[in-house]
Amino acid sequence: MSGDLPVSPLAPKKFPSLPTVKGVRLATAATGLKYQGRDDLLVCEVAEGSTVAGTFTKSKTSSAPVDWCKKALSGGEARGLIVNSGNANAFTGKAGDKAVESCIEAVADQIACRPSRVFAASTGVIGEQLLVEKITSQVPDVWSRLADANSDAWTLAANAIMTTDTFAKGAGQMVKFGDVDVHIAGIAKGSGMIAPDMATMLAFVFTDAAIPGSILQQLLSRSVDESFNAITVDSDTSTSDTVLLMATGSIDGQPEISSVDAPELAGFKRALQDVLTDLAQQIVRDGEGATKFIAVAVKGAENDLAARRIGLSIANSPLVKTSIAGEDANWGRIVMAVGKSGEMVDRDKLSIQIGGHHVAQDGVAVDDFDEAPIAAHMKNDEIDISVDIGIGEGSATVWTCDLTHGYISINADYRS
Amino acid sequence: MSGDLPVSPLAPKKFPSLPTVKGVRLATAATGLKYQGRDDLLVCEVAEGSTVAGTFTKSKTSSAPVDWCKKALSGGEARGLIVNSGNANAFTGKAGDKAVESCIEAVADQIACRPSRVFAASTGVIGEQLLVEKITSQVPDVWSRLADANSDAWTLAANAIMTTDTFAKGAGQMVKFGDVDVHIAGIAKGSGMIAPDMATMLAFVFTDAAIPGSILQQLLSRSVDESFNAITVDSDTSTSDTVLLMATGSIDGQPEISSVDAPELAGFKRALQDVLTDLAQQIVRDGEGATKFIAVAVKGAENDLAARRIGLSIANSPLVKTSIAGEDANWGRIVMAVGKSGEMVDRDKLSIQIGGHHVAQDGVAVDDFDEAPIAAHMKNDEIDISVDIGIGEGSATVWTCDLTHGYISINADYRS
Repeated sequence: MSGDLPVSPLAPKKFPSLPTVKGVRLATAATGLKYQGRDDLLVCEVAEGSTVAGTFTKSKTSSAPVDWCKKALSGGEARGLIVNSGNANAFTGKAGDKAVESCIEAVADQIACRPSRVFAASTGVIGEQLLVEKITSQVPDVWSRLADANSDAWTLAANAIMTTDTFAKGAGQMVKFGDVDVHIAGIAKGSGMIAPDMATMLAFVFTDAAIPGSILQQLLSRSVDESFNAITVDSDTSTSDTVLLMATGSIDGQPEISSVDAPELAGFKRALQDVLTDLAQQIVRDGEGATKFIAVAVKGAENDLAARRIGLSIANSPLVKTSIAGEDANWGRIVMAVGKSGEMVDRDKLSIQIGGHHVAQDGVAVDDFDEAPIAAHMKNDEIDISVDIGIGEGSATVWTCDLTHGYISINADYRS
Repeated sequence: MSGDLPVSPLAPKKFPSLPTVKGVRLATAATGLKYQGRDDLLVCEVAEGSTVAGTFTKSKTSSAPVDWCKKALSGGEARGLIVNSGNANAFTGKAGDKAVESCIEAVADQIACRPSRVFAASTGVIGEQLLVEKITSQVPDVWSRLADANSDAWTLAANAIMTTDTFAKGAGQMVKFGDVDVHIAGIAKGSGMIAPDMATMLAFVFTDAAIPGSILQQLLSRSVDESFNAITVDSDTSTSDTVLLMATGSIDGQPEISSVDAPELAGFKRALQDVLTDLAQQIVRDGEGATKFIAVAVKGAENDLAARRIGLSIANSPLVKTSIAGEDANWGRIVMAVGKSGEMVDRDKLSIQIGGHHVAQDGVAVDDFDEAPIAAHMKNDEIDISVDIGIGEGSATVWTCDLTHGYISINADYRS
């Protein structure tokens, strides 16, 4: 299906050149599971002693690989990763659990490590049994081709995990850690917050920094809240959402970190946040049918969580998203979405800006505001909405895209 | 705008013939507030001693008339109602509150009653000040034309409260109450669970049964949960949603009711539920761009509330709604929507039927199910989805419509 779709008009100009991450080796292969003529299998080996952190979908019908990863994560250590596209291995019952175990064992055999050190993710059709032999039979060959995780390898990896994505997604950073430079590289897939018959959002991030597993998990959980948990395309949540962060520590001379608040971590935290936010925004930019990238900044809410919920209520509203598609600065719909969020709001303190211009202040429309600059802003590819709730210190920014005929066409007119 | 839109293909063949409700008098007028060449003002007088019950939007940015009604309702008694279409008087600050008071006073002057006995509702554009003199100046004349609430009067009333509706909505019943026949007649407006720039869902229901206010409120609250609270078009919640039920008691010989569980109420409860459900379903049938009416029945949930939340999660999912628009029995999207509901679910006990045919059972796809009858069902105007969670006794049914290019056209391509 992705082959039929034009590249999103909001796509970055090209795939970025990602840094080599020490201690990570990658390879891809074509299993023919669903797609023809393209790679759909990614395997990664990470150095002995690598730590791992993860966050997963909150769905109560989570996929078999998600269930596996949640369990494996308790060990806090990783040696390998296997990812396939084309089949999500979700809603596949006990056979689905067995299929994951087969993939895991195939990789663990190559590494000669415990199965619980290996992680897995699957993305694609829901409810179809995974023909796991098509994957496991490839593992010895693809493993023999593992190569250092350099810029070329990341590009192949990002392409192998795509489903309905119209462009491959990657982001990277180099950052000073104590006296040495460490690297972060991440790849992601997803178009639509989720398209569950081509499920779902996946992101894999690697660093050669040396960070203990429990601290890595805290870093990831905080950063995901302000990146992947702050984006929405269509309010639907997939069975397979997975973010994994692996840290190899494969560079000598790094500082020893004993707390998430260690001052040495400041630069790394910023870099990690940048990488995750960049990847999350790329998913929005590939939102099904998207023609506009929308940032919704909320301040003055009761607290940060309330601000994010208000932001998501605006960003998920079909009426807000269609009015932006129509380049109509219909701020009444923003008021509606604030009101339905369920968060504490005082109508008479609410102010709204579009493109930096006030349209409503203190609960009423601004008298005789100049519509020309707002109308001009609505024609942009990037739309800024700011809401001041006016009652507290909570703030958050969320990102979404508009809701267009393209979304309907992709999800209703095409048949899977 | 409504004039531009074709009548929904899901509309009933004609407006029903509603029964005369004793003790209710109605009249309509044209104020020219927004629409030209049609009535947009409805006034009602109800007999002295009438009781009243109401349910309202949970929005934190509720409209000025909603705020008034919530306060007035504490008295439990009603004498009058005034409704305008074309302007929602929402997000209009203190001036909006004053505008409601002016309307209320104009009606209370005619009746010579306390203002707190008069109720108001407004529907239309958000954020524009209501030019209240256009309404109040009409009140003496329209009041002089009040006439018995017979079939013709109900038809005029239902038309006067329309905004983007493509057909007028009404439902009525006659029911034995003790030894006498009493009547229920209701009118509603709404297309889109809500289109907040043409806000919103309103329903006014009248009966000549004699029912104390506190019992009337309990009856209404229960019935609304299984009717208006069980429908969704686009998951957006308006600033103005209002359901008012007024009971005149204007027929002699009725039983005295002292409890909501009185056996004499059984028939009335069923009739009230039928009227509210009929009105609620008519709103879904007028959903913006709707081409299919969808019933989602959930059973086996932890409890009834969980069942309704799961049903609404399915009914609100853009991916489920677009697949139905595309006549695609994409049950993987239903699994996704069950999972994201947040309610208790055991993947391995979940079963799904479409059009009465199992597609998934006990957590996996049904092997080799016959796709022909399901494909035929998907071509119908009315789609039935049944989900059995398999863990408890909770059940609920909710109603929605599909998500089509028509919804995008109405909300993005047209400008307000």
